[in-house]
Amino acid sequence: MPINRRKITVVGGGFTGTTTALMTAQKELGDVVLVDIPDMEDPTKGKALDMLEASPVQGFDANITGTSDYADTAGSDIVVITAGIPRKPGMSRDDLIATNAKIMKSVTKEIVKHSPDCYILVLTNPVDAMTYSVYKESGFPKNRVIGQSGVLDTARFNTFVAEELGVSVEDVTGFVLGGHGDDMVPMLRYSFAGGIPLEKLISPDRLEEIVERTRKGGGEIVNLLGSGSAYYAPAASIVKMVEAILKDKKRILPAIAYLEGEFGYQDMYLGVPVVLGGDGIEKVMELDLNEEEKQALDKSADSVKNVMKLL
Amino acid sequence: MPINRRKITVVGGGFTGTTTALMTAQKELGDVVLVDIPDMEDPTKGKALDMLEASPVQGFDANITGTSDYADTAGSDIVVITAGIPRKPGMSRDDLIATNAKIMKSVTKEIVKHSPDCYILVLTNPVDAMTYSVYKESGFPKNRVIGQSGVLDTARFNTFVAEELGVSVEDVTGFVLGGHGDDMVPMLRYSFAGGIPLEKLISPDRLEEIVERTRKGGGEIVNLLGSGSAYYAPAASIVKMVEAILKDKKRILPAIAYLEGEFGYQDMYLGVPVVLGGDGIEKVMELDLNEEEKQALDKSADSVKNVMKLL
Amino acid sequence: MPINRRKITVVGGGFTGTTTALMTAQKELGDVVLVDIPDMEDPTKGKALDMLEASPVQGFDANITGTSDYADTAGSDIVVITAGIPRKPGMSRDDLIATNAKIMKSVTKEIVKHSPDCYILVLTNPVDAMTYSVYKESGFPKNRVIGQSGVLDTARFNTFVAEELGVSVEDVTGFVLGGHGDDMVPMLRYSFAGGIPLEKLISPDRLEEIVERTRKGGGEIVNLLGSGSAYYAPAASIVKMVEAILKDKKRILPAIAYLEGEFGYQDMYLGVPVVLGGDGIEKVMELDLNEEEKQALDKSADSVKNVMKLL
Amino acid sequence: MPINRRKITVVGGGFTGTTTALMTAQKELGDVVLVDIPDMEDPTKGKALDMLEASPVQGFDANITGTSDYADTAGSDIVVITAGIPRKPGMSRDDLIATNAKIMKSVTKEIVKHSPDCYILVLTNPVDAMTYSVYKESGFPKNRVIGQSGVLDTARFNTFVAEELGVSVEDVTGFVLGGHGDDMVPMLRYSFAGGIPLEKLISPDRLEEIVERTRKGGGEIVNLLGSGSAYYAPAASIVKMVEAILKDKKRILPAIAYLEGEFGYQDMYLGVPVVLGGDGIEKVMELDLNEEEKQALDKSADSVKNVMKLL
Repeated sequence: MPINRRKITVVGGGFTGTTTALMTAQKELGDVVLVDIPDMEDPTKGKALDMLEASPVQGFDANITGTSDYADTAGSDIVVITAGIPRKPGMSRDDLIATNAKIMKSVTKEIVKHSPDCYILVLTNPVDAMTYSVYKESGFPKNRVIGQSGVLDTARFNTFVAEELGVSVEDVTGFVLGGHGDDMVPMLRYSFAGGIPLEKLISPDRLEEIVERTRKGGGEIVNLLGSGSAYYAPAASIVKMVEAILKDKKRILPAIAYLEGEFGYQDMYLGVPVVLGGDGIEKVMELDLNEEEKQALDKSADSVKNVMKLL
Repeated sequence: MPINRRKITVVGGGFTGTTTALMTAQKELGDVVLVDIPDMEDPTKGKALDMLEASPVQGFDANITGTSDYADTAGSDIVVITAGIPRKPGMSRDDLIATNAKIMKSVTKEIVKHSPDCYILVLTNPVDAMTYSVYKESGFPKNRVIGQSGVLDTARFNTFVAEELGVSVEDVTGFVLGGHGDDMVPMLRYSFAGGIPLEKLISPDRLEEIVERTRKGGGEIVNLLGSGSAYYAPAASIVKMVEAILKDKKRILPAIAYLEGEFGYQDMYLGVPVVLGGDGIEKVMELDLNEEEKQALDKSADSVKNVMKLL
Repeated sequence: MPINRRKITVVGGGFTGTTTALMTAQKELGDVVLVDIPDMEDPTKGKALDMLEASPVQGFDANITGTSDYADTAGSDIVVITAGIPRKPGMSRDDLIATNAKIMKSVTKEIVKHSPDCYILVLTNPVDAMTYSVYKESGFPKNRVIGQSGVLDTARFNTFVAEELGVSVEDVTGFVLGGHGDDMVPMLRYSFAGGIPLEKLISPDRLEEIVERTRKGGGEIVNLLGSGSAYYAPAASIVKMVEAILKDKKRILPAIAYLEGEFGYQDMYLGVPVVLGGDGIEKVMELDLNEEEKQALDKSADSVKNVMKLL
Repeated sequence: MPINRRKITVVGGGFTGTTTALMTAQKELGDVVLVDIPDMEDPTKGKALDMLEASPVQGFDANITGTSDYADTAGSDIVVITAGIPRKPGMSRDDLIATNAKIMKSVTKEIVKHSPDCYILVLTNPVDAMTYSVYKESGFPKNRVIGQSGVLDTARFNTFVAEELGVSVEDVTGFVLGGHGDDMVPMLRYSFAGGIPLEKLISPDRLEEIVERTRKGGGEIVNLLGSGSAYYAPAASIVKMVEAILKDKKRILPAIAYLEGEFGYQDMYLGVPVVLGGDGIEKVMELDLNEEEKQALDKSADSVKNVMKLL
């Protein structure tokens, strides 16, 4: 049987979806299909073509195509969902959730129909609840529906720490649990530079400022941009997860995973460290939490549950 | 003397400039400064920060900063100019040229002041004339002021040929001379797939269609996008030139070079094959042209000269 | 169904085999099994372990194991054969061929038994005849049994040309047909630097010297080394072919392919340009040859046939 | 002033030196000169040529040359010393040290003469003492003379842990102090998988076995190979340090650094965590040690001092 390229579908042709498509193709992880609504079909095709035209220059072989027809996504190994609306001025949080949940449902229906064996990665906010929504709608086993937030939150934290210490970003390893952004639970005693605990390298006050900046990391970019939100680091983060699965790397990464008792939570999605490999989430890595950490994680879980109620 | 990172400035924080900054940083070619006008300072800082936050995920070490102060660009090894306005509906071609030429002058003044030893790469359209304008304003020797169009035109041509033949983009090597887009002069007898002349693999009619699609390659993307223009392939193209210089690779690439008699032209910039290395354009590679090719190149040169007159 | 890593077996734990294993793992093309005879099992395990210990430093995920038991190679996607003895002083050419043909037979038996669906790449000399031997023994369809010589011969030619012209190796594209080394048929009119025919850049005498040096390229290394032969460039060449298949790249590369009438030859293996993708040799690219070229290729084919007779 | 490639000299054309040269060139860190004694000049040229011929296949631009004339190494940015004899059966440890120290002296004299501004990296065993010897002979400031052992020891440890846990090598970060091999001081409380302390993931007994295997890691390879010793992981380790300096990455890595009071030691070289950047060792990172760790480090330091006395 001939060896075929993997196939990755990215739902949503906005900046995050497009950047995800490009970074996936640059790594030659497989062919990429970028899918959006019919109104956006032409722009999506345009972006796909522009990316494809970069391939001879950068030397990667990957088809990148734009479409509004889910039939073109058939047989995908992985589907990344970036679709959804951002919160607009004057929009209530409940409206945002209702709208995006509706999008998740319709998108998931199409995914399941055309790629019944795929792994689904969710990036749409509020991401914990949206991942849960996709999980329920898909009927997929829990290991095949996964949300992203921790890779991005950690990346932001690591960036700020590397800058603070004047060292390479490659040697800083932060650690977060729980929800995205404000709900993030930083695990400082599991965060290091070159293996040395950050608590020995940075003063508590300064470290607290860095944590706070990380929590508000998405907002910092939004405020600077004026319109729109971050997409480079989010896309890089999701592609790291795509790569972990397609290359069966068994990376230990923070991911939004379905919990059935781990860390004391039931029937919900929450950010925890997992082993991510060829079968999606192959294992949740449980940790000892001290009282302060457990309280923070409980608070984060409550916050996620409150959003889930709105579904 | 400690070993310092190279410094690359990208002028213009639009999509092309930003993508150029990211691709430069991903290759760890040096630290990147993204500079735009004061009104765009915050968005530029936001994009730079978002890219920087991707660095721990992708594992590259490079500072990326946004600014509106050219003092921050001081001592750059290479400056890439992507600034300029696109042609808007109702705007005459002459107005476009006048406006962008004015931008080139003010930008070049700043570049020369702060980085008197740098190499300048120009991407702003109409690129042949704009490169000439930068050359004149800078007072730099000709090898240090270079325009980009042929790498991109070739990339588009190669993409279409690879698709036509169903082969890897890595094995198609097209060849173009002359101006950008409509003025492009395709050299089909110097264009190959796996070393085999395309004329032996593709029918003349089909090949002519591919050439025509390449000429209109920028327009095809513009039409699909609805608003805005291509930026992925343009950015990848300019970064290939940045890399050739910073790594002193001595690549043979099509570039917009200042001619003093080569190919029969004087005191103008035109797309020709050059050796691009650590001293910028180290050599123009002259070719035998047959009559048809020479006529086409003359026409292309005339077109460039007509634009130059408007400067 | 979980996504599994590809599996590549390299037969022969000498320098070429080991370097092939490392380069395959560095590209994360899959897990690698290095297999040699029982007497060499421990050294093979030692080399595999040393390479594996380089993986955390270079950041690649790939198991590399050494063994003498073909059961460990079961289910390989690709098997590379580097096993065989080199010609020793005093050994007749016929003895060399007889010995290596015997090795091919026993190795192929094991490969077919444990990996009935694999693609086989042959590097053992005299490679055209050895590939034929493996083809016959395996009973595999012709597209799944492939020999390497042209990628290496071209690489040597390109190296010498790049040095001669003082340009990047990335921009030189040589072209060879026929057998390996002395039997190589250089196609100078299909050989270029930056798309420009070499015949316009280098004098005929100098070009002939470069061709002659290429023909004797293996011998040049052998003479310098004093004992042993080249392995870096041969390993890199075979890995390029492995990558083309595993990533279904559809590269146009010179390969030793089974011919059934192409170029006028029947029932033999000979070096010709092919499309190499997920189904092995997906196509032989035929070329117009002028009289001189056809004569040279006939001579090369005769030479291969003479070796084949000894099988 | 044109941009020139960096220049890296590797002293010693054995397997470690050769592999170091190749890995340096593959990363396009600069041009590489491989230097050995006159008797080995031809084999060294042969290996350099074989590597160079791999460059068109793998797509890197870097000259690689072999020589026995140190004049060819003039103006190197970095010099890596891999020269020296291994311990042979029947040879006393004192003889080994005396012989290698003599080699260090003569090599250093040549390096200083031809590349007075370079950074020197030492890999020759016993590496702590040999680095000290080079430091004294060179008269260079301490930040420019650096030994390698910890990157390799850590790599071996990480390999074994990743295998034990069934996770990616990219997510295991071990930490060692002190001398090489037997004298290595593992810092288990600073060793993690995905940020989780190994002590929480692996039983103490099993962890002790892994530490012991790491200590004997070089010997394990020697025993398997039968003749010769490890070179892939050692070369990868030294190249990681070369890259940290040439790209001014400011990596936090374990390195053999000259101590003037740090960790309580004076006028000696010992393995400690440092910041490695464009000015070599830019900082020694001090750590709190508990009593057990301090005792183990004292023992390791004593062992190094005993070797130093023999110089």
